Amino acid sequence: MNASEFRRRGKEMVDYMANYMEGIEGRQVYPDVEPGYLRPLIPAAAPQEPDTFEDIINDVEKIIMPGVTHWHSPYFFAYFPTASSYPAMLADMLCGAIGCIGFSWAASPACTELETVMMDWLGKMLELPKAFLNEKAGEGGGVIQGSASEATLVALLAARTKVIHRLQAASPELTQAAIMEKLVAYSSDQAHSSVERAGLIGGVKLKAIPSDGNFAMRASALQEALERDKAAGLIPFFMVATLGTTTCCSFDNLLEVGPIYSFNFNPHKWLLVNFDCSAMWVKKRTDLTGAFRLDPTYLKHSHQDSGLITDYRHWQIPLGRRFRSLKMWFVFRMYGVKGLQAYIRKHVQLSHEFESLVRQDPRFEICVEVILGLVCFRLKGSNKVNEALLQRINSAKKIHLVPCHLRDKFVLRFAICSRTVESAHVQRAWEHIKELAADVLRAERE
Amino acid sequence: MNASEFRRRGKEMVDYMANYMEGIEGRQVYPDVEPGYLRPLIPAAAPQEPDTFEDIINDVEKIIMPGVTHWHSPYFFAYFPTASSYPAMLADMLCGAIGCIGFSWAASPACTELETVMMDWLGKMLELPKAFLNEKAGEGGGVIQGSASEATLVALLAARTKVIHRLQAASPELTQAAIMEKLVAYSSDQAHSSVERAGLIGGVKLKAIPSDGNFAMRASALQEALERDKAAGLIPFFMVATLGTTTCCSFDNLLEVGPIYSFNFNPHKWLLVNFDCSAMWVKKRTDLTGAFRLDPTYLKHSHQDSGLITDYRHWQIPLGRRFRSLKMWFVFRMYGVKGLQAYIRKHVQLSHEFESLVRQDPRFEICVEVILGLVCFRLKGSNKVNEALLQRINSAKKIHLVPCHLRDKFVLRFAICSRTVESAHVQRAWEHIKELAADVLRAERE
Repeated sequence: MNASEFRRRGKEMVDYMANYMEGIEGRQVYPDVEPGYLRPLIPAAAPQEPDTFEDIINDVEKIIMPGVTHWHSPYFFAYFPTASSYPAMLADMLCGAIGCIGFSWAASPACTELETVMMDWLGKMLELPKAFLNEKAGEGGGVIQGSASEATLVALLAARTKVIHRLQAASPELTQAAIMEKLVAYSSDQAHSSVERAGLIGGVKLKAIPSDGNFAMRASALQEALERDKAAGLIPFFMVATLGTTTCCSFDNLLEVGPIYSFNFNPHKWLLVNFDCSAMWVKKRTDLTGAFRLDPTYLKHSHQDSGLITDYRHWQIPLGRRFRSLKMWFVFRMYGVKGLQAYIRKHVQLSHEFESLVRQDPRFEICVEVILGLVCFRLKGSNKVNEALLQRINSAKKIHLVPCHLRDKFVLRFAICSRTVESAHVQRAWEHIKELAADVLRAERE
Repeated sequence: MNASEFRRRGKEMVDYMANYMEGIEGRQVYPDVEPGYLRPLIPAAAPQEPDTFEDIINDVEKIIMPGVTHWHSPYFFAYFPTASSYPAMLADMLCGAIGCIGFSWAASPACTELETVMMDWLGKMLELPKAFLNEKAGEGGGVIQGSASEATLVALLAARTKVIHRLQAASPELTQAAIMEKLVAYSSDQAHSSVERAGLIGGVKLKAIPSDGNFAMRASALQEALERDKAAGLIPFFMVATLGTTTCCSFDNLLEVGPIYSFNFNPHKWLLVNFDCSAMWVKKRTDLTGAFRLDPTYLKHSHQDSGLITDYRHWQIPLGRRFRSLKMWFVFRMYGVKGLQAYIRKHVQLSHEFESLVRQDPRFEICVEVILGLVCFRLKGSNKVNEALLQRINSAKKIHLVPCHLRDKFVLRFAICSRTVESAHVQRAWEHIKELAADVLRAERE
C-alpha cells in the first residue's frame, strides 16, 4: 500500500470510525459469541499472497464486531470508563505516522519534552503540590506509564532498591535476600489487585490493612500494623493509598495516612485520553531513575550526562515507548480545562441521578456513599437474589454491569462510562433493571 | 468535537500522515534542537477554553516536528528498525475507535480470540515447533507483550515462581528469600540490557556468559558456569539465548544451548507492525498464568473457569491491553507472507550492499559477520578516530547512526531501518561516510 492508496483507505477508515461511534447505541453492548467463536471464521494460516483491503474491512463487520464488547456504548456501565475522544484519536493517528521510539531524549527530543511539559500541565490542573512538577528545575516530575499496574510496580521497585541501598550502606554485611525477607509493603484491603501483584513481582510481603466502615484506610489501622510489624523485626518500606477504589470508589484517608511519595492516576480512564496513558509523578525523580539504570553504548547520547535532559527509559519497565503525550496535548487543548471539568461533572451528575432512582425504590439499597461516577447498589436481601439479578441483566445484554464484593455482600456496580451517555440512557437502564428485579423477586417467591 | 467534525479533521490528518511519509526524505533525519527547546514554545499551563484544531495542527509543524528524530527517514540507520506500514496504521485507527480493554475474554472476546489466532499464524510463519501453538487444544500459545523487556521479565518471574514452588514443595521449611538468594539466571555477555534489568527487578542474580569470537554464547561456556554455580550451592533456574544481539546481530548457538522454554521477538521491529507488538510464545501457558493469578470479583466472568478461554491479563504485567492483534491481521493479510519475506530480504540485501562497499575500502573493516540487516564497521585504527568519525556523521545530520562496543573496540552500527530505504540511499550514505572519514583521517594526520 502506497501513500496514495493510504489517502483513500485512511479516509474510508475515518468514516468507518465515525460511523461506528455514531451508531454504537444500536449495537448490542455485550456480544452473543461463545468461547472459540472466531477461529473457525478465519483461515488457519496467513495468506501467501495479499488480500485486498475490501476483504479485510468487510471481515471487520463480519468477524470482529460480533465479538466486541462495546466499551463506548452508552449502555456500558461495567468496570470503569476507558477514555475515548476524537481529539485523542487524531493524536494517535499522528503518533502512528511519526512512529518514533522515545526511550531517550536523543531518540526523539520532542517526544520526551512534550511529555514532561504535559505532565506539568496536568499536575497543575490537579493542583498537585509543586514538588511533583518538573518545571523550574525541581527534583520532581511526571512520566506516562502504560498502566497503573506498571506505575505501582515501578514505585515499589524503586522503594525496594532505595531501602536495600540504605540498609546495606549502614550494615554492609546484610545481603539483599536477608533484607528482602523482612520488607513489608501496605495497602488497604480495598486496593486494586495490581497492588498485590506488584508485591508478588517484587518478591516482598504486602499486607492488607483492614478498611473502615466506609471502606477507607485510616491512620489508626495502618499505625497498628506498622508497630506490630516493626516489633516483629520487619521493615516497612512502601505504602499505597487509593483514592477511588475499584470495588466501590472509596477513598483512603489521605490527610491521615500522611504525605505519599508518588501520585498516579489514569487519564485513559476519565480524562478523554485514549488508552494507554497512566500519569505518574514523583517528588524525587532520581529515586526512580537510580533504581535500574543501565547504559549500554548503543543507547548513549551526547547530552545524557548533562543533567539537562530526561531519558524516560529509566522511569519505566519497557525500553520502547510511543509518543503518547500528543494525545494529552490534543485533548487538553481541544477541550480546554473547562471542557474537561464539564465532562467529569456531567458523569458525576449522572451517577447521582442513578443513585436517586435507586433510593426511590424501597426494594433496593445504596451500599456506599456515591462520590464520583460509580454507584454500588443491590436488592435488599440475599447475595443469591443479587447474583440472579446480575445474571439476568448480563444475559439480557441491553446494558452491561460487573459486580463486586463489599465484605460479605455481593453488590452490583453501576459505573458511568461512555462519553456519550445521557440522562435518557441512565433512565432506560434503571427501568430495565427494575423490570428484571421484579422478575427475580417473583421467581424467588414462587 | 463531534463525529461530523472528526470526519473532516480525520481526513485532513490522513493527508498530513501521507504527506509526512512521502516527504520524510526531505526532512533532516536528526533535529537541531537543544535540551529544553520545547518548554518556552508552549504555554505554561493548559488553556481554560478550547483551542482550535487549526492552531494545534499548525503547532505540530512549528513545535513538534523540529524536535523529532525521523525514525522512518531512509537516512535513519540507528538502533534497529521500528516498524511502520500503512496497513498497521489503518488497523491502529480502528483499534482506537473500538477502544476496548481486553484484559479478559469477556472484556472483549474478539480482542482475545484474534490475538490467539494471530499468534498461531505468526508461529506457523516462523515454523516454530508445534508445542508453541495454541490451536488443537495444546498447552502452549502466544501473547502480544508491549516490549521484549516485558516478555523477558514475565518469563523470568514465571520461572522464579515455578522453581520456588517446586523447592518449597520438596522442603517446606525453605523461605522464599532463602531460595531467591541462591537463584541464578544466565545470558550471554552480549544480551540486551533489558535482560540484566529483568534480573534486577526479579531480585535474582544474572550472570553474563562470555561469548565466543563471533559474539555467540556456546554450550561449553554455559556448562562451565552451570557446574561452577551448582557446586557453589546456587540454583540455576533461567536462561536467555539471543538470536540477533542488539550490539552486532550475533546469534547464540541455539542448537548447542538446547531447547529454550519460551520464544519472543518483535514484529514491531522488522515485520511492519507498528509499535507496540512484541510476540511471545510459551510451551506451557499455565506456567505464566499460574505465576501471578489474582481474581478479584470485578474481573470475574462466567466463562473463566471453563478451561475454554484465555484471560490475557494473567500473561502480562499490566492489566489493560489494546486490541493490538488487529495490526497483525491487517499487515499479514495486506502484505501476504510473500510480501513480508520480500520486505525482509530486501533489507538483508541492502545491508550486504553496504557491507561490500565497506569491504572495497581498505581504510575500513567489517567487525562481525553480516547476517541480517546490521553492518558493524569501523575505520582500521584507534577508537578515538572512530569516535571522531561518528561524531562528524551525527553532527552533519545527513544520516543518523549509533555506535556499540565490541569488546574493547568502538564500532559504528549501520542498521537498515526505513521501510522506504533503497540502494540509492545506502550508496549516498556511504559516499557521505567516506568523505567524513577522509576529513577525520586528514585531521588526525595534521
